[in-house]
Amino acid sequence: MWILRIDMSKLSYKLEPVPEKYRYLYGRAMTSQIVADEVPPLCHALGPNNKLVFSAGMVTSTSAPTSARISVGCKSPLTGGIKEANAGTSWGPDLASMRIRALIVEGVPEKKDFWGAYISWDAEAGQPKVEFFEANQYIQHDVYETFPLIYQRFEGRISICSIGNAGENGYGNSGIVFNDLAKRPSRYAGRGGVGAVMASKGLKFLILNEKGSPGIEMADKPLFEEGRKKLIDAIRSHPISKPKGGLNSYGTAVLVNILNEAGGLPTRNFSSGRFEGAGRTAGEAIFETNKERMGKEIYNHACSPGCIIQCSNTYYNPDQTERTSCIEYESTWALGANLGIDNLDDIATMVQLCNAYGLDTIETGGTLGVAMEAGLLAWGDSKAAIEMIHEMGKGTPIGRILGAGAEVTGKVYGVRRVPTVKGQSMPAYEPRAIKGIGITYATTTMGADHTAGYTICPEILGVSGKVDPLSPEGKAALSRAFQATTAFIDSCGHCLFIAFPILDIAAGFEGMIQECNGVLGTNWTADDVVAYGAQVLKVERAFNEAAGIAAEADRLPEFMRLEPLPPHNQVFDISDETLDSVYKDL
Amino acid sequence: MWILRIDMSKLSYKLEPVPEKYRYLYGRAMTSQIVADEVPPLCHALGPNNKLVFSAGMVTSTSAPTSARISVGCKSPLTGGIKEANAGTSWGPDLASMRIRALIVEGVPEKKDFWGAYISWDAEAGQPKVEFFEANQYIQHDVYETFPLIYQRFEGRISICSIGNAGENGYGNSGIVFNDLAKRPSRYAGRGGVGAVMASKGLKFLILNEKGSPGIEMADKPLFEEGRKKLIDAIRSHPISKPKGGLNSYGTAVLVNILNEAGGLPTRNFSSGRFEGAGRTAGEAIFETNKERMGKEIYNHACSPGCIIQCSNTYYNPDQTERTSCIEYESTWALGANLGIDNLDDIATMVQLCNAYGLDTIETGGTLGVAMEAGLLAWGDSKAAIEMIHEMGKGTPIGRILGAGAEVTGKVYGVRRVPTVKGQSMPAYEPRAIKGIGITYATTTMGADHTAGYTICPEILGVSGKVDPLSPEGKAALSRAFQATTAFIDSCGHCLFIAFPILDIAAGFEGMIQECNGVLGTNWTADDVVAYGAQVLKVERAFNEAAGIAAEADRLPEFMRLEPLPPHNQVFDISDETLDSVYKDL
Repeated sequence: MWILRIDMSKLSYKLEPVPEKYRYLYGRAMTSQIVADEVPPLCHALGPNNKLVFSAGMVTSTSAPTSARISVGCKSPLTGGIKEANAGTSWGPDLASMRIRALIVEGVPEKKDFWGAYISWDAEAGQPKVEFFEANQYIQHDVYETFPLIYQRFEGRISICSIGNAGENGYGNSGIVFNDLAKRPSRYAGRGGVGAVMASKGLKFLILNEKGSPGIEMADKPLFEEGRKKLIDAIRSHPISKPKGGLNSYGTAVLVNILNEAGGLPTRNFSSGRFEGAGRTAGEAIFETNKERMGKEIYNHACSPGCIIQCSNTYYNPDQTERTSCIEYESTWALGANLGIDNLDDIATMVQLCNAYGLDTIETGGTLGVAMEAGLLAWGDSKAAIEMIHEMGKGTPIGRILGAGAEVTGKVYGVRRVPTVKGQSMPAYEPRAIKGIGITYATTTMGADHTAGYTICPEILGVSGKVDPLSPEGKAALSRAFQATTAFIDSCGHCLFIAFPILDIAAGFEGMIQECNGVLGTNWTADDVVAYGAQVLKVERAFNEAAGIAAEADRLPEFMRLEPLPPHNQVFDISDETLDSVYKDL
Repeated sequence: MWILRIDMSKLSYKLEPVPEKYRYLYGRAMTSQIVADEVPPLCHALGPNNKLVFSAGMVTSTSAPTSARISVGCKSPLTGGIKEANAGTSWGPDLASMRIRALIVEGVPEKKDFWGAYISWDAEAGQPKVEFFEANQYIQHDVYETFPLIYQRFEGRISICSIGNAGENGYGNSGIVFNDLAKRPSRYAGRGGVGAVMASKGLKFLILNEKGSPGIEMADKPLFEEGRKKLIDAIRSHPISKPKGGLNSYGTAVLVNILNEAGGLPTRNFSSGRFEGAGRTAGEAIFETNKERMGKEIYNHACSPGCIIQCSNTYYNPDQTERTSCIEYESTWALGANLGIDNLDDIATMVQLCNAYGLDTIETGGTLGVAMEAGLLAWGDSKAAIEMIHEMGKGTPIGRILGAGAEVTGKVYGVRRVPTVKGQSMPAYEPRAIKGIGITYATTTMGADHTAGYTICPEILGVSGKVDPLSPEGKAALSRAFQATTAFIDSCGHCLFIAFPILDIAAGFEGMIQECNGVLGTNWTADDVVAYGAQVLKVERAFNEAAGIAAEADRLPEFMRLEPLPPHNQVFDISDETLDSVYKDL
């Protein structure tokens, strides 16, 4: 296995052996450790000293189910702290198959040129090689146009990693896009402005062709297979993850009605927990609309090789052409309820535009909510919202304001109600109605992020038990446990959605650990999983503290302590001491 | 003496006695203590929990020379930390004369209305009273238009405090303006977005009419008089502050050629320390242009009652009409060398526009420098710069970006070279060429601010000794001593420019202390002065730490450690440990 370093100031690369201290680090554990070891915490996120690190998970490129995640790490231009964003795509397995444990992009070019890097397997040398090509002609174009050009340009089965206008414009709201199984540029490591970091390095494409590569080594294949089967069984039997279950039928947007019912669906820039138009934006509505338009029931598809949950939807036009893929829960909420919009066709258009321009849908919706709060456009005006996303793509002054994210937009317009933590927009769960997720938002190293510690499982979904979402009781410990376990899952390469089955089905959890032990030759137990995740969090936390982001940044915005949220009329009442205990007691 | 509280949520007020713990607190010491005691450090700066505090100095409204300063304090929307900005104006003495030790504006109105508050002396009750009036008709107008309307509206000699478009638009770059002696709206508590805080409270005007008020009490008049005479002698004999001396002849802009010679005049967004057009923007050029246009030598005038330094210039048009007053060093630099502009008439126009719209000239120049770095307009294009300031006044999208300040503009345009500390633009001294002032920029509680610890005195001007500006030796102690003494001067009510004579002439320093002892009945020595100032800094520092602004924020931007600055080709090489020692050893 190698660390592959690409130096964009010289268009050069080198392969290094993986240091012993990184032996068991993969995915998020690997990207965060390298960022902590190599990036000065106070450097400019778009400057020469930041680095962009890619690493696939422990079991990525094996036959483990739903395990094709790729982690992207750097110092975030949005939060100023450490960032890990991940996506499901063939790109992750391809990187792992070439035995590249981590790909580190460093340096910035002297001129503002853009380049592509083509990474393939050099059979003669028995190692990966990198070739660079000019990419200026591809910039400031819809990524739905550039991806096909790249697929044409390179022979064989390739995987593509790229950025859109948003990254090229240096936006705090800019993701890194990977291909899905249908070659769409639709799988985003979306959050924290990672696209702008890639752009700052003059890197437009990272193209992988793993043909001839050896694949990853496995220490104990039978153990791996045993674990894999247990995990597959768990996934296939849990109501949320099974075939034609919640996710496969309705996608993640199955959550819209559930959260709305719970009074925890943030509406009109977090001024209510319930949206009268929620049903029209929900997964069920997507399913029914498709059924009507296509004349049959359409179940969802896999975003990446080996996924058996298959939660990605496609949303179709009345003429049966594709409008977008995929409308996630977060997206239909951010561009729906959060803006008072219930027109599903327009929401789908906005999702497609975010993908085309390289924008994170959560940050985009959060920002448009702040813009509506400022009076720039009216609540519910989906046509105006679509226009604003076009402005973001074009990089006009108003587009650039919005492209910088909700926090900056709030500053530019003097808005008091800005739902961010550490500069990052809050996702689709209201902290005043669901206290545990508020603790995660406040304390995670990532800025407001539901995936960092998804306490929604017990607070709303009844997964791994059931706790009262409105109660503050025990929620710090709950968030801490979820954050640590999540940091492990983000490192093993599995999609976070395996959490549903493995939290409820003990054999599934055991299976995941056996898979990892099978690959790595370790003897980990459940305790080791938590300890591994906790160590990742500690590394990230230390980076943030050195970047000046400490306990005082682990707070929700003031308005959530001042304004009671309908329908439960609760404020966020978790004490600072409780928030601080999450990491103090880690 | 009273604390006057105005609650803008109810348009009500009350008078409270000054608590014993505030007995000796005036000016900056008073505003910072009240902010520390009453404002939650993590509140939204434009929200209901921030407060705007005004307090005049210890000797303000006495006959002490050059002592008519008013301090304005709050949590800053620009830096997120504590802010004190001060100005010289009749408003300060008038507040003090009504025995209002501190005026605290709190609360925010429910609707977005603007109001004025008229504060006068109620002879019958023997105390100040407040009357409110509607002020919506005055907003979004040039303050040069609104001031005369207010002077017409109210009888007698009034003093005016107000805000312009910038504050009303909620800009991070927005000052609070006070009248000068010629009734111009030209004296700004300019930095840190204090104007936006005033606007957030729906307060457009604070008008004082001190007629009939008793003036301040004095414990030992002869002692005060003795001190006052010593200080007057010192001011009148020092080459910088004496009549027809450096400041009275050429204004603060006398520094342009001096700093340029020293290689410390930040040029084109801090990419050089020397500007080829500097001479055409200097105080001497202002003096000579006026002489040519007016046919005689024009010496400068006092901005506020009782000033004997009289450094404020007026800049005239060829037709002998007034173009602006006053062109400070900071302004002619920020809108001149920093932008590669050497057209003095256009610089004067920009100064006038900043005053008219309520913008801080330093933040405006710093921001335009970043905008030029981003390619929005060309270096040296003064006409385009003037247009941009108009955009800021109008509140267009591009104007709002710039109005949010240099840091936000850098984020919006993805610029790496952003010369700010704690979100506030650096003033007119290059830290790589003058190391001590860099330590002040980095460590002061205020964000980058030369007035917080003006080490330029010994590093450049040979005042209080002479040290090598390029050497890091002893500079932490130097900055600390200047910061502490400055905090005292900002509390006593004297203009900071008395520092030149009192640092060189021991009797002048003694005189200042005797004045204070005379007013307060204290027995302070020089050591007490430093201890008083140090205590102010500790209070401010504690507020900032609780607001999440700690040692990691006490750093200069990364590019100043990476890019050697011509002509000395030095980077900023003060270690983090040295920076941290400033407050650790306080």
